[in-house]
Amino acid sequence: MTQADDPGVDDFRDLSNADRRPDRPGGRGLVIAEGVAVVERLIASPYPVRALLGVRRRIDQLAESIDDLDVPAYVADPDVMARVVGFHLNRGVLAVADRTPPVDLARMASSARRLAVLEGVGDHENLGSLFRNAAAFGIDGVLLGPGCSDPLYRRSIRVSMGHVLRVPFARLPEWPGDLKWLRHEGFRVVALTPRTASPVSLREAGLERGRVAMLLGSEGPGLTEEAIGAADVAAGIPMADGVDSLNVATSAAIAFHAAGGC
Amino acid sequence: MTQADDPGVDDFRDLSNADRRPDRPGGRGLVIAEGVAVVERLIASPYPVRALLGVRRRIDQLAESIDDLDVPAYVADPDVMARVVGFHLNRGVLAVADRTPPVDLARMASSARRLAVLEGVGDHENLGSLFRNAAAFGIDGVLLGPGCSDPLYRRSIRVSMGHVLRVPFARLPEWPGDLKWLRHEGFRVVALTPRTASPVSLREAGLERGRVAMLLGSEGPGLTEEAIGAADVAAGIPMADGVDSLNVATSAAIAFHAAGGC
Repeated sequence: MTQADDPGVDDFRDLSNADRRPDRPGGRGLVIAEGVAVVERLIASPYPVRALLGVRRRIDQLAESIDDLDVPAYVADPDVMARVVGFHLNRGVLAVADRTPPVDLARMASSARRLAVLEGVGDHENLGSLFRNAAAFGIDGVLLGPGCSDPLYRRSIRVSMGHVLRVPFARLPEWPGDLKWLRHEGFRVVALTPRTASPVSLREAGLERGRVAMLLGSEGPGLTEEAIGAADVAAGIPMADGVDSLNVATSAAIAFHAAGGC
Repeated sequence: MTQADDPGVDDFRDLSNADRRPDRPGGRGLVIAEGVAVVERLIASPYPVRALLGVRRRIDQLAESIDDLDVPAYVADPDVMARVVGFHLNRGVLAVADRTPPVDLARMASSARRLAVLEGVGDHENLGSLFRNAAAFGIDGVLLGPGCSDPLYRRSIRVSMGHVLRVPFARLPEWPGDLKWLRHEGFRVVALTPRTASPVSLREAGLERGRVAMLLGSEGPGLTEEAIGAADVAAGIPMADGVDSLNVATSAAIAFHAAGGC
């Protein structure tokens, strides 16, 4: 049984900060998975696992998945785990992995058919839910414009149920210039927004045809005028009077489903 | 300024328990709205408001909405509010209302075109999100089968952003017998499930045609065999390999959107 002062579990110490992005002060940027199902998805992902820490029962449940991994799996009591990570965990097992180098934008764009492009999605839960939906509908990649938070933040990974780990993503350096670049690459950029005067419907937008980049903004302010202006077309999801918006992950799910040919 | 021991604010005391259903021990079953936007939706709803409690700035923001209401609006410091409700509030204003008598099932069924029917949706956040989506897409009512939690629980109201307050709902006493009754009333009952061997697509299910009752289960166990068996047809939302389910509120949003003619 592992003790709380074992240097082997240093990756798991002070977990609330361990996932801070490596480009931030003190950031380590570890990818942290919690719970058996999410740990399994981390193991199946491109992120190289460094170690596991869990109670006996959970480590045993993962025995088959970790059999081929050449990484330590520390077994500890719940109390010891809580002392290491800094709070009480419900899920009984954790795994940490390293980040991978950023995905090459040009390569992602050359092979993708359906992309999501986000602007100002700063809420970690919304971002995690959106990635879960992107995975569910087989979206080929997510491009992050300004104001988006880190999809590999622990809370996003958890809310996505680990599915964020299977969807390639990249940050767009030029905004909204990169939307023009996407169009040049053959993508129809469809802005999802309830705000324009006469948006077309999702069916009219023909998301299921050809290469399409679905542009989504945060549910408060929505997409900026600059982003909408740089898109090929604005499409709206019709809503009842008195309801001003849907959750961004929900709008995304409806668009992703339509892009698969609802 | 109101003090913490003012009997006028007794409705707001120990808020974590004040919304406990009246049919439970010690339950008062108050309908509690938090934040300016949700309080406004409560005021616009059929639930009779009893009182408001808030900091000066928030009560002032609501001045126009409460002008016609003959109810007390207590102004208090944040510290006093925290002492009354039992925890620190971020949103600065609360309103409480009474419940209304249950909606008459036969009357709801006679006038509705699109209904949602839920089985086992016990998670308050999922239920709140689902009601938000039901409001957004103008669903005429939500029918609660076994295992569903209380849509008027404080957390559900908050997650729904108050939209739960505008969607009629009722509990179904007979399960799955009431699904047969719905079919007898002229509804096509469409079970949304990824589990059957060969579900039809949402488009094939024709949710936009005629009177339809969309049957949704919780995302873990899903719908029971009894419920699926009592439906007219099972429809599935196609998902990528390796993703087993969507969040129930997300599935609902996709179905509700389709029922509006996506």
